[in-house]
Amino acid sequence: MPPGGRRARRGGRVAVTALGGGHGLSASLQALRHVTDDLTAVVTVADDGGSSGRLREEFGVLPPGDLRMALSALCDDSGWGHLWRDVLQHRFAGDGPLAGHPLGNLLIVALWQLLEDPSDGLRMVGELLGAQGRVLPMSDDPLRIEADVVDPADGTRSLVVGQGHVATTTHRVETVRLVPERPRANPEAVAAVLDADWVVLGPGSWFTSVCPHLLVPDLAEALQSTAARRCVTLNLEAGGTETVGYRCEQMLEVLGDLAPQLTLDAVVVDPSAVDDLPALRATAARFGAGLHVREVCEVVDGRTTARHSPLRLAAAYADVFAGRPADARRN
Amino acid sequence: MPPGGRRARRGGRVAVTALGGGHGLSASLQALRHVTDDLTAVVTVADDGGSSGRLREEFGVLPPGDLRMALSALCDDSGWGHLWRDVLQHRFAGDGPLAGHPLGNLLIVALWQLLEDPSDGLRMVGELLGAQGRVLPMSDDPLRIEADVVDPADGTRSLVVGQGHVATTTHRVETVRLVPERPRANPEAVAAVLDADWVVLGPGSWFTSVCPHLLVPDLAEALQSTAARRCVTLNLEAGGTETVGYRCEQMLEVLGDLAPQLTLDAVVVDPSAVDDLPALRATAARFGAGLHVREVCEVVDGRTTARHSPLRLAAAYADVFAGRPADARRN
Repeated sequence: MPPGGRRARRGGRVAVTALGGGHGLSASLQALRHVTDDLTAVVTVADDGGSSGRLREEFGVLPPGDLRMALSALCDDSGWGHLWRDVLQHRFAGDGPLAGHPLGNLLIVALWQLLEDPSDGLRMVGELLGAQGRVLPMSDDPLRIEADVVDPADGTRSLVVGQGHVATTTHRVETVRLVPERPRANPEAVAAVLDADWVVLGPGSWFTSVCPHLLVPDLAEALQSTAARRCVTLNLEAGGTETVGYRCEQMLEVLGDLAPQLTLDAVVVDPSAVDDLPALRATAARFGAGLHVREVCEVVDGRTTARHSPLRLAAAYADVFAGRPADARRN
Repeated sequence: MPPGGRRARRGGRVAVTALGGGHGLSASLQALRHVTDDLTAVVTVADDGGSSGRLREEFGVLPPGDLRMALSALCDDSGWGHLWRDVLQHRFAGDGPLAGHPLGNLLIVALWQLLEDPSDGLRMVGELLGAQGRVLPMSDDPLRIEADVVDPADGTRSLVVGQGHVATTTHRVETVRLVPERPRANPEAVAAVLDADWVVLGPGSWFTSVCPHLLVPDLAEALQSTAARRCVTLNLEAGGTETVGYRCEQMLEVLGDLAPQLTLDAVVVDPSAVDDLPALRATAARFGAGLHVREVCEVVDGRTTARHSPLRLAAAYADVFAGRPADARRN
């Protein structure tokens, strides 16, 4: 689709653009592909650790890791799709020169070098998988993340550099920045936000996978001005690493601080993540959103996990997109 | 196909099994896929240099390089087939840890690690390409090649170790050996030789790509006992590196020395490679073969090259397989 073109509606289904990165976006996409066949993922490109970091250093390319995970999440439910998803996710073992590289990262880089356009390369991997949707980088420029953090024990401030370090810091993140600041957005990603019926933000590492989209000026502008409705899905654990001390409503406020004109239509949250329901509902309402408290976490052997269930999340999204009212039973 | 099973004939076309390695086998396969849709390649697995050598060392796998080239030669003539062939052949540049690795080698290794069976992994890459045939290793065990060579200047003998070094030696190869000696054959490769209508040996680096098949006992036995007819395609340049001083008829004798019961039905040779036609014809006749002198080299801008032309070679194979008489005009 050329930038700015209207997205063709297939089968009357809702056009959804999901923004994020890492495991959170993967969960979101696994859910959304049950709900729509018009799905676009817009993915952070600021990872500079692990295999992605080594490939950036060796070839100067975008970090492929989060893009690979998004593609894998969209794989076709055929034997072919599952095999090639497994191939993409296969990580070389040992301690040699290839150790730690998932094959999919190398495949994506090879296609980028051959086709020269990041979106074209990702489209070809998507075709290989029979991916049920498309995957775009939020920017065609490789980025880095740094954050000002505060030690909760003694209040001392420090600078944390690198997506991996920010995502796993046990200090409280106060401010997060992209380096270089104000990068160009991928034009197809901007168009996908403008042309969607629904835009979905989260779940995911808040400061390193969700917020970065609001630090790309054209993407932030599109997110605030689009005629699409907007849904935020909160994490199952608000106060984990990087967001230690944050409550759910503060996660929303972080988004509002970065994008002051941002309005929302729906906030989805698992009841286990909420400790002050009236406060969260009031904050959601200030953004214009109904609060959908839904059990969306995966249950294995009768125990809740820290992962979203693709089918439970799909059910929640289906209700949200169909305009069913937010759950008002829990108050 | 299980070992020993009869090969299903499709469309009444001839079942062909081609043995070799490297660029020679690639040329043969590019020709043969025009002539039959029942094509099996049996490939040497003794390369221990370059990307293949590094992957053997890092993961203890078969050397994937010659297998990758054979798969690429069989790729479907669609845009999809050509793109994925280009991806397989794409070699990472620079001087970093990935430099020199073709993506296809890494993909094959990933599939071997996932599927655990060499033939299964190669079949999946073949399906990705829409390969018009299947590719099998001659053995499931990684092998090495060494050769006793003679300096043509002063007659001194020495040992050359490694496929790449043997293939490019400027000394005359006297004896070539596999290490370890007498390896097990891949059972599907043996079955493909036994079940074929035609078996094709060569062109290719004679001592490192063609002869190694005769050094695998079960494969040599199958080549000598199969009811299939046998065609040898000679190189365009008999006396190049590794075969310095050899004439065409001596190339055939090298095969006979390794497999004393070997009979042949056809020998294909380009006129430019022949310097003693009666001698070559007599040697071919001793193997039971008619000599097909055909212009099979590629011509670019009116000049002959050192490469076989896929279409000219296809035309020669079509005539050989159809039982058209050997060319008797040149005598």
